[in-house]
This record gives sequence, C-alpha cells and structure tokens, in this order.
Amino acid sequence: MIILKLGGSVITRKNASEPTLDTENLTRICREISESSYENLIVVHGAGSYGHLYAKEYEIGAEINSKKELERKKQGFSKTQNSVKDLNAMVCEHLQKQGIATVSIQPSSFIKTENKRIIKADLDLIKQYLELGFVPVIYGDVVLDANEKIKMAVVSGDQLIKYLAENLKPELVVLGSDVDGVYNQDPKDNPDAELIKVVRSRKDLLSLDSTKTVDVTGGMGGKIDELLEIAKNGIESEIINANTNNNIKRALNGEKEIGTLIR
Amino acid sequence: MIILKLGGSVITRKNASEPTLDTENLTRICREISESSYENLIVVHGAGSYGHLYAKEYEIGAEINSKKELERKKQGFSKTQNSVKDLNAMVCEHLQKQGIATVSIQPSSFIKTENKRIIKADLDLIKQYLELGFVPVIYGDVVLDANEKIKMAVVSGDQLIKYLAENLKPELVVLGSDVDGVYNQDPKDNPDAELIKVVRSRKDLLSLDSTKTVDVTGGMGGKIDELLEIAKNGIESEIINANTNNNIKRALNGEKEIGTLIR
Repeated sequence: MIILKLGGSVITRKNASEPTLDTENLTRICREISESSYENLIVVHGAGSYGHLYAKEYEIGAEINSKKELERKKQGFSKTQNSVKDLNAMVCEHLQKQGIATVSIQPSSFIKTENKRIIKADLDLIKQYLELGFVPVIYGDVVLDANEKIKMAVVSGDQLIKYLAENLKPELVVLGSDVDGVYNQDPKDNPDAELIKVVRSRKDLLSLDSTKTVDVTGGMGGKIDELLEIAKNGIESEIINANTNNNIKRALNGEKEIGTLIR
Repeated sequence: MIILKLGGSVITRKNASEPTLDTENLTRICREISESSYENLIVVHGAGSYGHLYAKEYEIGAEINSKKELERKKQGFSKTQNSVKDLNAMVCEHLQKQGIATVSIQPSSFIKTENKRIIKADLDLIKQYLELGFVPVIYGDVVLDANEKIKMAVVSGDQLIKYLAENLKPELVVLGSDVDGVYNQDPKDNPDAELIKVVRSRKDLLSLDSTKTVDVTGGMGGKIDELLEIAKNGIESEIINANTNNNIKRALNGEKEIGTLIR
C-alpha cells in the first residue's frame, strides 16, 4: 500500500483570493497516477485555497468565548466543509476520468479530534474499500473537537497522513509538494543550497550546515518531525516535487531518492 | 428533534436524462425551513436524478458474477457517489444561504449494509453535531455491503429515515414528497379518490375502499410499512406535499394532518 499526499499548493492556486483549482496540474497528476503501477493506493489531499481562506476568516480551532462567536464559527465550519468537499469532488472526478475507481472519504463524517489531534476514526471501511480495489480519496477537513473551549478543529492532510500511516502501515508515503524536497538552506535566498537526499533524524538536517538555519518554509520542519515519527515504525516517506513532470509516476512505481527520503 | 425528508422527486427533476436540480423548489424549501421554529433538525434527502440514473445503469446492488462486472460496478459506485455528493453540496449551499449551519454527513464514509440493510452506522457524531445546533444533512448514497455476492448497495433516504428514527427517537418525522399524502385510490385515475388523513395500520388503508387496490404509486406502500414500523416506537410521521407552498414550514412548526399522518 502507498499513501500519496497531494499538497493543497499543488492542486489549487493556494494564494488565490477565492477557491481556485489548478486544473492543469490536477489533470496531469491524475494521468500520472493512472499510468503507474501500485497495488493499493490512498490519496490524501490538502485544502489549499478551498479551505484556508474560510478556516482563517472564521478561525476554526480558536477558543470560543461567546454564543455569538459560536454561531459565527458554526457558519464558518459549514462553509469550509462544503468548500473542501467541492475540491474533493473535483479531485475524484479527475481521477475517475482516468479510469480510477475512487471512493471519497469525508473526515467530518467519522473523525473527531481532541485539542486538534485525531482521537476517533474507524478505519475499517477504508480497509474494506482498499480490499475491493477502490482508491480512497480523503482530505483536509473541519471536524468536531472534544475540547469544549474550541469545539471544532481543522484536521490537515498532514495529520491524516500520519494517522493513516500509523494505523494502516503502508510500504511508502509519498508527499507531493511544490518544492524539490528539503534543503540545508533556503534555496530562494541561497544559490548554494543543497537538497538533502536522506533524512534519518533531525540531526541529519543540522549536520549539513550547522551554522545556518534549516529551511523550514511552508511548515517543512513540522512535516519532517511527523515523518520521522512515522519512520520509527519502519515506514519510509519521500517528499517530492509534484510540479515536476513524472515525479509522482516515478515515486508510485517505486523509484527512490527523487526528492528527500525520510527513513 | 424533527427528521425532515426531502424526496429526490422534490429537489431534483427526477425524470431528467441527466442530473438536474429543481432550483426553484430547493430555494423555496430552504427558505421555509429557515422561517420555521424547530429545536433540532436533521435533513435527509433523496438522490433523484443524481443517483437513480447511475445506480440503474450500473445496477449497484445486483449480484456480481465476474471480475469484469466487479470493475464496472466499482466505476459505477464511484460515479454515483460523486454525483449524489454534488447534489448534497448544493442542498447544503442553499440551506447555508438562508443562514442555516449545515453539516454534511456522507453515508459511504461510515455506513455499511448487509443484504441492503444498514448493519453498521455510528451516530455519535450526528448527536454531537445536533447538540451544537448544527443541522446534519444526510442523503441517499452508495455503500459497502457485507454480502460477498453484491459487495455494494444503495442506501436510500427512506432507509436512512427509518434507521435514524429508531436510533435517535425524534418527536416527528416529516416526509416531503410530491403527492398530497396517501389516497384510497390512485387520484390520477379516480376523481373520487380520497386522501387518508390518519393511518394507524395497514388495515386503515384497506378499509376505506376494500374493493380497490390501495394507491402504491412511487413505492408509497413500502414507505408506509416502514413508517408503521417507526410508529410502533411511538414516533409519528407525516407525508406532506413539499411542492405546496408553506407545507414544510407548517409541518416543522408542529401543525398536524397537512397530509397523511402515520401514528
């Protein structure tokens, strides 16, 4: 089994002022998935401009201090849920056009968090869909939170990746992002920045260039911490640039060290 | 708590050759819901032309006799799921426009059937959404079936109604349909057909006109059997014409005998 993450910045125009699909990227990526050979596949996608705009405007996950604020947040929850569901429908539709039998899985229908971490999620149905040869397509969503102070939370694609990996034990996790992988310096500022091919611990990041801060743009630092946790269970993950032609296809076909491998 | 069913024939153009929304009806019904006073509400909607076309073409729920047939049915499952999800997104969006904080609930993410009857469905999240004052919007969908011969099934809005009613014990179930209620004869053929105001058992249907067949157009007979089952638990349900202005609003406000009451 492979779990493939499609970053919100890859399939949507993340900085758009309204939810906007990156149709060209999505079409190409779905074709690459259909052309690759996997036994079982789960696709996890981020929300990009379909989620962040609403979640930010309504501050889903922030403390609720009044009834008015609760009502406003419920409206925000409702709008966010519908918007990310729209994106998911389009991802499924594009995969279907390539002949892939998708099954959409809606986190808010079966997942609950506590302090923004998943505490309830029955994965039996996902396992059964996989056994039948479906490709489950799950996504960043809003969910109920057991903490009475916040009541609602965002569950990100990255958190889903970690939860699914720990519970379903895939052979590989592929993270399709909009960068080539992890650098020892920020490649935007430093022409000498080098791509780190393999990360085995946080130390591997620091040892390459101990005098400079490790690139943590786009929350890469947090991502790697979660991936290192997964690696402890023997599950490899690789961060690749999904904007580069055929990278996803190569990764799904088992090619390694396309980007940064975390093992 | 009230459970309101919106029939697929009310919110979609059921006989259209492709999925078609009845925007006018849906807009009016959502306004009526927003204008009525309910404490807790669950909306269940049918699939209409968004589901039946695909489910019929791919015969979801029929026996699978070959690998080729399984692959074809999986494609059909995938397309049906996406299509009914589209309809659900539009229902939620129309309710949101009236200021209602909806939460979409996707049956295929948490429900499983055996021989086409629900055997697995954790309703805890729905209860918690209701406690927060959300309006859960659940719908007819395709799901996994434990019977190895069929593997997949359609779970109809009517079956959801029964399952939710038995487990959540609402005060009332309102069925918004495209007829005024149950008649003792088919009103299309018989100008003398009379609307039955109250049904307490199957006998009430027959006694009115024992020489003629009771109107069972549109599966009304099966519907009533399920509603009589619910009535045994002390839950009243009423079949009303949702195409008539203000009927939904009146029913949600507690008015009785608008159509046919099953108690």
